[in-house]
Amino acid sequence: MTTVAAYAAPAAKAPLERTTIERREVGEFDVLIDIKFAGICHSDIHQAREGWGEAIFPMVPGHEIAGIVSEVGSGVTKYQVGDRVGVGCLVDSCRECENCRAGLEQCCTGGVVGTYNAVGKDGEPTYGGYSQKVVVDENFVLRIPDGLSLDVAAPLLCAGITTYSPLRHWNAGPGKKVAILGMGGLGHMGVKIAHALGAEVTVLSQSLRKQDDGLKLGADHYYATSDPKTFEELRGTFDLILSTVSAPLNLDQFLSLLRTDGAFVNVGAPEEPVALNLFSVIGGRKTLAGSGIGGIQETQEMLDFCAEHGLGAEIELIAASEINEAYERVLNSDVRYRFVIDTATI
Amino acid sequence: MTTVAAYAAPAAKAPLERTTIERREVGEFDVLIDIKFAGICHSDIHQAREGWGEAIFPMVPGHEIAGIVSEVGSGVTKYQVGDRVGVGCLVDSCRECENCRAGLEQCCTGGVVGTYNAVGKDGEPTYGGYSQKVVVDENFVLRIPDGLSLDVAAPLLCAGITTYSPLRHWNAGPGKKVAILGMGGLGHMGVKIAHALGAEVTVLSQSLRKQDDGLKLGADHYYATSDPKTFEELRGTFDLILSTVSAPLNLDQFLSLLRTDGAFVNVGAPEEPVALNLFSVIGGRKTLAGSGIGGIQETQEMLDFCAEHGLGAEIELIAASEINEAYERVLNSDVRYRFVIDTATI
Repeated sequence: MTTVAAYAAPAAKAPLERTTIERREVGEFDVLIDIKFAGICHSDIHQAREGWGEAIFPMVPGHEIAGIVSEVGSGVTKYQVGDRVGVGCLVDSCRECENCRAGLEQCCTGGVVGTYNAVGKDGEPTYGGYSQKVVVDENFVLRIPDGLSLDVAAPLLCAGITTYSPLRHWNAGPGKKVAILGMGGLGHMGVKIAHALGAEVTVLSQSLRKQDDGLKLGADHYYATSDPKTFEELRGTFDLILSTVSAPLNLDQFLSLLRTDGAFVNVGAPEEPVALNLFSVIGGRKTLAGSGIGGIQETQEMLDFCAEHGLGAEIELIAASEINEAYERVLNSDVRYRFVIDTATI
Repeated sequence: MTTVAAYAAPAAKAPLERTTIERREVGEFDVLIDIKFAGICHSDIHQAREGWGEAIFPMVPGHEIAGIVSEVGSGVTKYQVGDRVGVGCLVDSCRECENCRAGLEQCCTGGVVGTYNAVGKDGEPTYGGYSQKVVVDENFVLRIPDGLSLDVAAPLLCAGITTYSPLRHWNAGPGKKVAILGMGGLGHMGVKIAHALGAEVTVLSQSLRKQDDGLKLGADHYYATSDPKTFEELRGTFDLILSTVSAPLNLDQFLSLLRTDGAFVNVGAPEEPVALNLFSVIGGRKTLAGSGIGGIQETQEMLDFCAEHGLGAEIELIAASEINEAYERVLNSDVRYRFVIDTATI
């Protein structure tokens, strides 16, 4: 066991504070990673505040992890000391179910292990990236290509894959009209990736406040959803709408923006049920779907794609002491576009 | 103009009664059809009682029409006198929009013309199949293959295509587990068609009352949704659930029966909005979709498929004087499985 400095929430809704945690010995197939950067995802806050149900405390959040390999187990073949690596939302899965075998570890039915707020196969709670080191099985470690700085790569491990996976699955690309709903941590990556995939990209944001940024990041069009004219003008327009927002939406209104056979895909979601008129999907054979992160192989594919196209996250680098303040700013949509913790400051 | 005997609802919620209507002259591209049989669809009742919003009266319902060609216009090339033909839910569309050009006339954005409760391109209201003759443009007339009796073919024009189209679109076939939710007019055709397509078919019905029929029509399994154990046992099972019910459902519960990447497709729908927890689609990358009837070419494909596999509807043949009673029985789910009017009795 190794004692490691970390930032943890001692209880639901309590502020995060500096503490230490124990990391397991480096096993045969394990990689020890010196964490350099950890992104702050909105879901860190949901979980630390038990917005998504009962959680495990103390909690060390963080599933957008970038660092350097500092030790490998005797059986490790994929990584060596000095490699630039990342860890996302998963650190293990059953590896045997149909989904795992299909590279959809995020849909593992045999027992996926989250990077934090979960229990590992050893029965011990898992702790996330707001810490200085982490031990992860090599099969759940990603390679960060040389072209990507570690700080802007960290958020790709959640915000990148969460948008890349559905954009690919629902065929965003040349000739397709794609809307990104919400221009936050996920949304800004959605814009970059959809643009790089060759789609015609429209941002649908509450206001035009971030319009300049959106166009700079690759959007072709930018509309305010607070303006009713947006819904008249864009009726029947999109092949795909990727919704990154977690506020309740008027789904029927947004489904009217899809063309025939279009899909509205949720990667964000409100905690409460939403109302839906099923005629909104029957007319035009429309799809309302969801997607969560992506599998390990697809996450590597996404990192390689981002490196090839020079896509990192837009970040605000903060010290660990600023985490609680950063949480408040995330809740107020006051971040452009992802907070990343410099873990040297923990 | 030709005066034709028909059954019409004179006003919303009024009983249907015998009357006469005028049919237009047979134009250059028109086909005059001597109607032999007309199915009673649940949506006839929705419309005759204004459950789906304001309607046009007097209303002659009926969009499951089978008959014989008795006259053709000078420009007609597809049909001749004596041909066995059918008419479904559409009698015209703009023919120019992207959807029409793609064979998706049911999604026409330029102005589709319903078989009844609509206004034709000539500005006159359209009247449906509860009548003795109808004049339809040849491009919206279907050929009923010799192997199918006209009486059991009539319901295919709506109940057949409404289930065939989504079953094909969402790839029901060998190796796929398909559930048909609801065992009524649509559902019983869904069972027959899904079975003929090679899928493993499960009926999900409120009770086991129609289990014998379901298994006889091609279902491999039959479960009661009133039994909570059904939802435990079938969790994560289906690639596709085709919902033919128009009662409000617990969507989250039914979405839990899908496997990863599964689709829940609504062809029936309640008039009121339903509640949905979006996490029900995010986990397992699931789809909630809708589908309505099908295009003209696909409807012909469905009729040919049904003839090839010997699939007609299970019907109760009635006289026109029994229409109002039949409506009450449809509302009470007391029909096995489609009422068909012998139009000789009008």
